Amino acid sequence: MKKYTYLVLGLLGFAALLTSCGNGNQGKSSSGALNSSNAEKVYVAPGEHDEFYAFMSGGYSGNLTVYGLPSGRMFKEIPVFSQFPTSGYGYSEETKPMLNTSHGFVPWDDSHHPDISQTNGELDGRWIFINGNNTPRIARISLSTFETEEIIEVPNSAGNHSSSFVTENTEYVVAGTRFSVPIPQRDMPINQYKGNFQGSLSFISVDPEHGHMDIKFQIIMPGFNYDLSHPGRGKSHGWFFFTTYNTEEASTLQEVNSSQNDKDFIAAINWKKVEEYVNNGGGTKMPANYAHNVYDESTHTATTTMKKEVVTVNPLDVPGAVFFLPTPKSPHGCDVDPTGQYIIGNGKLSADLTVHSFDNMMAAIEGKKFDGEAYGIPILKFEEVLAGTVKSGGLGPLHTEFDGAGNAYTTFFISSEVVKWKLGTWEVIDRKPTYYSVGHLMIPGGNSRKPFGKYVVALNKITKDRYLPVGPEMEHSAQIYDISGDKMELLYDFPTHGEPHYAAGIPAELLAPKSKKFYKLADNKHPYATLGAADAKVVRDGKDVHIYMSTIRSHFTPDNIEGVKVGDKVYFHITNQEQDFDVPHGFAVIGANNSELLIMPGQTKTLVWEPKQVGVWPFYCTDFCSALHQEMQGYVRVSPANSNLELSWSLGD
Amino acid sequence: MKKYTYLVLGLLGFAALLTSCGNGNQGKSSSGALNSSNAEKVYVAPGEHDEFYAFMSGGYSGNLTVYGLPSGRMFKEIPVFSQFPTSGYGYSEETKPMLNTSHGFVPWDDSHHPDISQTNGELDGRWIFINGNNTPRIARISLSTFETEEIIEVPNSAGNHSSSFVTENTEYVVAGTRFSVPIPQRDMPINQYKGNFQGSLSFISVDPEHGHMDIKFQIIMPGFNYDLSHPGRGKSHGWFFFTTYNTEEASTLQEVNSSQNDKDFIAAINWKKVEEYVNNGGGTKMPANYAHNVYDESTHTATTTMKKEVVTVNPLDVPGAVFFLPTPKSPHGCDVDPTGQYIIGNGKLSADLTVHSFDNMMAAIEGKKFDGEAYGIPILKFEEVLAGTVKSGGLGPLHTEFDGAGNAYTTFFISSEVVKWKLGTWEVIDRKPTYYSVGHLMIPGGNSRKPFGKYVVALNKITKDRYLPVGPEMEHSAQIYDISGDKMELLYDFPTHGEPHYAAGIPAELLAPKSKKFYKLADNKHPYATLGAADAKVVRDGKDVHIYMSTIRSHFTPDNIEGVKVGDKVYFHITNQEQDFDVPHGFAVIGANNSELLIMPGQTKTLVWEPKQVGVWPFYCTDFCSALHQEMQGYVRVSPANSNLELSWSLGD
Repeated sequence: MKKYTYLVLGLLGFAALLTSCGNGNQGKSSSGALNSSNAEKVYVAPGEHDEFYAFMSGGYSGNLTVYGLPSGRMFKEIPVFSQFPTSGYGYSEETKPMLNTSHGFVPWDDSHHPDISQTNGELDGRWIFINGNNTPRIARISLSTFETEEIIEVPNSAGNHSSSFVTENTEYVVAGTRFSVPIPQRDMPINQYKGNFQGSLSFISVDPEHGHMDIKFQIIMPGFNYDLSHPGRGKSHGWFFFTTYNTEEASTLQEVNSSQNDKDFIAAINWKKVEEYVNNGGGTKMPANYAHNVYDESTHTATTTMKKEVVTVNPLDVPGAVFFLPTPKSPHGCDVDPTGQYIIGNGKLSADLTVHSFDNMMAAIEGKKFDGEAYGIPILKFEEVLAGTVKSGGLGPLHTEFDGAGNAYTTFFISSEVVKWKLGTWEVIDRKPTYYSVGHLMIPGGNSRKPFGKYVVALNKITKDRYLPVGPEMEHSAQIYDISGDKMELLYDFPTHGEPHYAAGIPAELLAPKSKKFYKLADNKHPYATLGAADAKVVRDGKDVHIYMSTIRSHFTPDNIEGVKVGDKVYFHITNQEQDFDVPHGFAVIGANNSELLIMPGQTKTLVWEPKQVGVWPFYCTDFCSALHQEMQGYVRVSPANSNLELSWSLGD
Repeated sequence: MKKYTYLVLGLLGFAALLTSCGNGNQGKSSSGALNSSNAEKVYVAPGEHDEFYAFMSGGYSGNLTVYGLPSGRMFKEIPVFSQFPTSGYGYSEETKPMLNTSHGFVPWDDSHHPDISQTNGELDGRWIFINGNNTPRIARISLSTFETEEIIEVPNSAGNHSSSFVTENTEYVVAGTRFSVPIPQRDMPINQYKGNFQGSLSFISVDPEHGHMDIKFQIIMPGFNYDLSHPGRGKSHGWFFFTTYNTEEASTLQEVNSSQNDKDFIAAINWKKVEEYVNNGGGTKMPANYAHNVYDESTHTATTTMKKEVVTVNPLDVPGAVFFLPTPKSPHGCDVDPTGQYIIGNGKLSADLTVHSFDNMMAAIEGKKFDGEAYGIPILKFEEVLAGTVKSGGLGPLHTEFDGAGNAYTTFFISSEVVKWKLGTWEVIDRKPTYYSVGHLMIPGGNSRKPFGKYVVALNKITKDRYLPVGPEMEHSAQIYDISGDKMELLYDFPTHGEPHYAAGIPAELLAPKSKKFYKLADNKHPYATLGAADAKVVRDGKDVHIYMSTIRSHFTPDNIEGVKVGDKVYFHITNQEQDFDVPHGFAVIGANNSELLIMPGQTKTLVWEPKQVGVWPFYCTDFCSALHQEMQGYVRVSPANSNLELSWSLGD
């Protein structure tokens, strides 16, 4: 039995903070020579480029941020699940559908685990996926445009945390339920959770050509909390592994009640077997209601389709597909080494790491080495699947990544450190403190068959005194370590925007050459595009007024519009006629209950404006585009609702 | 007459880009020794702190970002004029009022010119002000909490660009109209602009104790575009200077039609004289409608007051208060040197800088050296006020800052460079290229009597190849130069979030010691605060359900709630009971048409949730707060609208 009590847990938290802060001075190594060397290692001189991209989840920003390594500079915040006033994402007519769900328009989420698409277990740099935790969704982002292209809602789920990891050939992106719920949802007492609530593990197929996502099946599991997951690879390709906690099935005061069992489980899923079962007509078509939002690069517009059915699978109907591997002390991270042999479960209330062996697991399954079952699912004998235990000497292990040279790196939240250890011998090789309380860590390619083990980035949850103070609310903090030698070397601290929950890194040369520079105007299929200034016009359709406007340095066509009336709904459809890299134009109009538009070359975007007051109201370009940017403006005359003034528009007359 | 034609202007824009990109390789200085030295100059070792804070306007993000210098690391994005899903600003009940305007709720703006409060012409580090450009507003941000405390709308204005600069003792923060409009607004033909549209210059008083803002008066000026402004200081304290363009009063194709006059004006305003006039009952009380939004730190809540009147002043009614200084070629930047003697107007279509002398101006006024008038306002003779001309050799001068050692630094957008020159002799001392197309620049304290002239930061509008590419949309880019020697030395490039339109810097020691670490729970006067777990409760008021919830590592009280029904409006009032630095808790509930809450220690925040479906729905903490953060969750049972289930709530039962 876990012996942690309420009080002890509280103290642990405080102790961690105090310890961490006490360690602070150790970070202030001021030996000149060392600093000089580290300074050079992270310095990217003006005009030169970083070696790696790092895609950091925004956590509670709901977005995905793009950093360069080793410099730690943020290159972009890609809006995914949250409204983004900066570019108009979630405000423009074209992008609002991206945030539709079965609960209506949801302007925010909590994005956690980015994962780059793979081919043969190696990063292929086509797409990156990320999960929305709160209102369960999976997003796909293009690594050519660096824009969100697709979001699919996940029904029968809650707290979509053990997501969004991909299989070795991106056959599937996987999503698992952290908070079990009644499936289907129904009005029932919360204290009848045990045996009634369930968790779903969703396998979402990815179209190999376009990346389009579709829920292939959901496995309906016992009502545990499914925390994290990783795919098998190499020899274990075809399997997927999920950590669980709250196998106690507690439904209140979980910090105590979910910490009672000495061991929880890693769930091992033979998804190939389940896929075959479903392909042969297995599973249950269950009524459902979930949004599928797809952004079309040629129309520059997203559309929402509400899907009404999902295939669910009872694991008991597919013998040999689902097993439980006992794993001590509320395992959090669930990581698979590059060979696919080792499955590491980090008990977050433990000091030791539990390493399971895929070969042992297969032998135990073959030999039926079971230790009972849970809701009919066989529990494999712990000793039979165990490969080894890492006696870490730390406290609160969370996540592990790999360098491709036979070493693993595990984070410890409570003892605030990264520990390097050797796969197979389980010996601890090195340890370095983190400032403070590290969660995930990231080695580029560290979740694939081919890691690029030059740097590890620690993603720390607590910042405190690491930077100049900025009031009660601080950014979180990352630290980059050089791992090219035997010992890890801390190089640099850099703040991260939002919560950098997890990250995915990739060498620059795999992405940079195919990064799109602008959209071809000739390919623009937006129904309200204005492909040349001569096509600009203003059209009334009842109370809707559609303004077909073009923009090029340094004017809008038209720039004077009359005949709009109070009570009209005015659609500014702006097409950016530029055909060069990094020449966006912005568009804003006074008093709009809306954000701006940021329109890339070749793109059309639409802002809705409902003028409430008569007058002559200006609009202007919001992105400094040329020497005469300040002159890039126009006016809309708004007449009373009963005015007879006809629509007219002009430029330069 | 300006001879620029439509075509030439277009070409200029393209030429600038081509030239800039051509210069790219010059930035790739790869001499090892130099790089090593520069690397050390910008490197801030783990555990050490930056020397300066740099507050960068977010431009079209609507926010204010906080960076450290020399490292170029971003420490925080402070939401100001835009919704910010990350923290719930503009989504929570407490902060929604901050974005109210006379046009209703406006979720975005374009923030341009931060300016730090001053005492005796020196930075005092109490507050920072910033303007909203699109729907005219001025915001005040606390430099203790780094939160937006107040936003006041500016009536009779449009394109609030020549803002938000403060006078020498922060008596006023000033806001000027970029786009002239009918005052008051009315339905009239746009082509009757000339002589009918007007621009207002607003002087907003700042309460010396609390910083509260109030519009003292608006000067109603001719219908020019008022582009930028700066205060007099030292000998010129009591005056304010505004650049104008479009003295042609064109209302269409401004890139051509506003560039016809050889000279536009700098408007010199003796605000002390106008203040005295208003204090003596002068001016007209004009009906108006504008929002004044104030955030109260003790209730953690903002309230909106709609104000109904503003005092306007006709400049002709205050003789000796307003003059025009002719200034060549559509002056953009309007900068005053630390002594207050020199007023620099940078004609953006020029190669030369025009420097006016305050002493000359006073003598010309005294001697009535007029060159006619514009709408009754005397135009001073150009030659009488001119102090000198800087023959820059560059093209497209925009902005100038000062190092406090007798030197000025001017940016050139078209020739993409910073030019250092000497005040008084007007000789050019040094020039360095920028990558690419620099707008503003910033020296900490550079807009005060006491600049801290160690670094200058160039805020570049175009990025292109400076960083790893991230699709068509790139961040803008800053460059930091060491200016401690005779020659400027480029140290580093770093991207900036949003558009870093302008920035304000201040030495770290002036702010860091007074940065607030958390809010005292004992001072929390929020009407729905839950000051202890024992006070947690759920109260029904018709269809409104108020949940008084407390949060501390690692649970919510209560964590199980029943009796909520479809059709209810549920208010989660969450109080963070922690009393330690950097221990926020987050709160989110599945399916909310809302963002999360991010709640600082001691604070109460409220999220509204309108459940539409029966079921048992989870909520959880979104900010990784402790080793048992994952367990920090709860459930709300939602029953049908006609259910008789009574409200109940619990923790651990």
